[in-house]
Amino acid sequence: MSDVLDVCNRAADLAPAVARLTGETKNRALRAMAAALEDRAAGLIERNAEDVERARADGTSQTLIDRLTLTDSRIAGMSAGLRIVADQDDPVGQVVEGWKRPNGLLVERVRAPLGVVAVIYEARPNVTADVAGLCLKSGNAALLRGSSTATASNQAIVKVLQEAATAEGVPADAIQLVPGTSRESALELMQAKGLVDLLVPRGGKELIKSIEDNATVPFIIDGDGNCHVYVDASADPQMATDIILNAKTQRPSVCNAAETLVVHNEIAGKWLGGALDRLAEKGVEIRGDERVKALWPDAVDATEDDWGTEYLDLVLAVKVVDSFDEAVSHVNRYGTSNAEAIVTGDLAAARRFTSEVDSGSVFVNASTRFSDGGEFGYGAEIGISTQKLHARGPMGLHALTSERYVVWGEGQIRE
Amino acid sequence: MSDVLDVCNRAADLAPAVARLTGETKNRALRAMAAALEDRAAGLIERNAEDVERARADGTSQTLIDRLTLTDSRIAGMSAGLRIVADQDDPVGQVVEGWKRPNGLLVERVRAPLGVVAVIYEARPNVTADVAGLCLKSGNAALLRGSSTATASNQAIVKVLQEAATAEGVPADAIQLVPGTSRESALELMQAKGLVDLLVPRGGKELIKSIEDNATVPFIIDGDGNCHVYVDASADPQMATDIILNAKTQRPSVCNAAETLVVHNEIAGKWLGGALDRLAEKGVEIRGDERVKALWPDAVDATEDDWGTEYLDLVLAVKVVDSFDEAVSHVNRYGTSNAEAIVTGDLAAARRFTSEVDSGSVFVNASTRFSDGGEFGYGAEIGISTQKLHARGPMGLHALTSERYVVWGEGQIRE
Repeated sequence: MSDVLDVCNRAADLAPAVARLTGETKNRALRAMAAALEDRAAGLIERNAEDVERARADGTSQTLIDRLTLTDSRIAGMSAGLRIVADQDDPVGQVVEGWKRPNGLLVERVRAPLGVVAVIYEARPNVTADVAGLCLKSGNAALLRGSSTATASNQAIVKVLQEAATAEGVPADAIQLVPGTSRESALELMQAKGLVDLLVPRGGKELIKSIEDNATVPFIIDGDGNCHVYVDASADPQMATDIILNAKTQRPSVCNAAETLVVHNEIAGKWLGGALDRLAEKGVEIRGDERVKALWPDAVDATEDDWGTEYLDLVLAVKVVDSFDEAVSHVNRYGTSNAEAIVTGDLAAARRFTSEVDSGSVFVNASTRFSDGGEFGYGAEIGISTQKLHARGPMGLHALTSERYVVWGEGQIRE
Repeated sequence: MSDVLDVCNRAADLAPAVARLTGETKNRALRAMAAALEDRAAGLIERNAEDVERARADGTSQTLIDRLTLTDSRIAGMSAGLRIVADQDDPVGQVVEGWKRPNGLLVERVRAPLGVVAVIYEARPNVTADVAGLCLKSGNAALLRGSSTATASNQAIVKVLQEAATAEGVPADAIQLVPGTSRESALELMQAKGLVDLLVPRGGKELIKSIEDNATVPFIIDGDGNCHVYVDASADPQMATDIILNAKTQRPSVCNAAETLVVHNEIAGKWLGGALDRLAEKGVEIRGDERVKALWPDAVDATEDDWGTEYLDLVLAVKVVDSFDEAVSHVNRYGTSNAEAIVTGDLAAARRFTSEVDSGSVFVNASTRFSDGGEFGYGAEIGISTQKLHARGPMGLHALTSERYVVWGEGQIRE
């Protein structure tokens, strides 16, 4: 058996034992994991330095090196996340709904773990702790498949987490690193049918394509983010400026950053020029349609491609629309179902936007940057689902469970 | 554009309009559909007779002809189902959960329709009404792909449903029959990516295999049913007999019929012989292990294959186990996650069985035959999910929706 299938089999074998852990055991383990990361921070940073040095030698970009680098404050963040996960209600066994049938049967819908959850992710060592914590709390065995760039960091983190969890009665293999970082080993994981119950690919378009083409295990697509901010006719101008500045520039490289600004023509004349000045001051390149250029001549001509592009950079496509309906159509046509925001003072517009815009998260008068498990209060996230089945938007504990039926009778048979 | 892609495109185009229908409109339409089926029953039965006659001429089995045949009482059943669907709460817009974040953001998880739901099914015309009703109530556009054997019946039923729904303000294409019954047209439907949001194949192993191999649209696997009844040491003997008789013989050809009886050795001696006599009287062939044969010598030798076989016939595999744990292991090893039952008087055994048996539906002291949307009170079902992602067990309205986030702010930005 290959190394990859070996860890998959071990995870599947002990998944029932993980599912049966009590909330108390899981919470004690999560708090012990949080403390252990802090206690052993110096050692983790030392191991992480090996990865960082190798990445530098390989000419890795500064952005990626920033994401890879562990610091005391990042480790504190990982620990804080684990403690928030511990503070949440245990989803396992939760009775979501229950009702009595006329024949006396009591039908309950009850949350249960999925079994084995695997995550493929990039060189962000904090994801290792996030995924391990959410999987443990939701009663799932975790398979972590990090990037080769972060191998030393991930090995060190998993070792710390495993030791802390095992001491509290969690089976050692409940949290496992998937060996290997080759394309072949990723394929093995994608095709471990019957062993892996959910695979979440947290990566770029190439990984998603590979999953769609090759995976035989159930998966959830994560993270495309062509996010929109729509500034309605009734928007508060200052609030609109604050939100688009934040959504575009606070961290342009992530999936919940805004990529397109849609503006109602009734507010464009008095507001758009000033707002674009502010964005330009922050170094944002503006690509606009004719009407944008008329109001702000420095804009580059937007092409059809711009409406569908996730720049992940300091570039913003800007479009002026004649109506609310046109705005909703544009967002639904080009959005990727991650996060869309409306800035408005009009209740009817807010209510229509929230129900008609078909996205995992819709924000009224708030930045798209809040589309995030931590910001929603989950302590961490397993990813952001941009599909419709099973879960949409930031995936916390509930997304790592599904609901099954438990039916209680006193001898009922069917006539 | 092919005929299949044409109906898929039409469904996708109007899905937002179906999603926005009010509960009142949907309920009026469902009741009008129910009434129209009854009013036009004679005409439906006439069209159905064409299908039945053709099926007879083709030498179709009596079981399949029974399923195909419409009668006044079956049509009344379809109408009753539609009325029960109308009586249920509108799932669309339901706020499943909501909480306030420290920064004042109100995060809500809200049910939304999936969009376009397609079902491929066999020659059971009642499924046409069931699927149409559930899809409409849950705000989804329905694509119905019935069997060639039932073409005339399905066309007639859809026409009646469409006319009744349209008169109440539902878009005409909200309920569409997918044209063609060829393998190629099924493939087109399976690969209508971006147009079909959920495909449910209600059919045999061949259809499921084809979906798994070819589908590029999201799907949910329906219906394998290697269901178990476990008779615990503490079972009430009469109740155990009643339940296994019902689960095995009330309708052996369906997926929630029991296929294996697992018996604790402490009750086997005093109970099993008599129970197997009763089953044999009903024409059930018994395949047992050594210990079963010792108690009931007429049993045929069970082979390893028997434990994994869904007979869908008057055959029952029987196994005696030494412990509760052995019973749970057997059920989890060979079960298909459809429906499993325990007969027991022991609370601890009941609680352990419900949490440790990993199945879509687990029954305590009730027949597996209740694993059914109608029996759960849903009025109908879209299928029975035997997978873990999105939905498990009988799929009613909630399984045709997913939860998305609506977040309300007053200008919040991320620091």
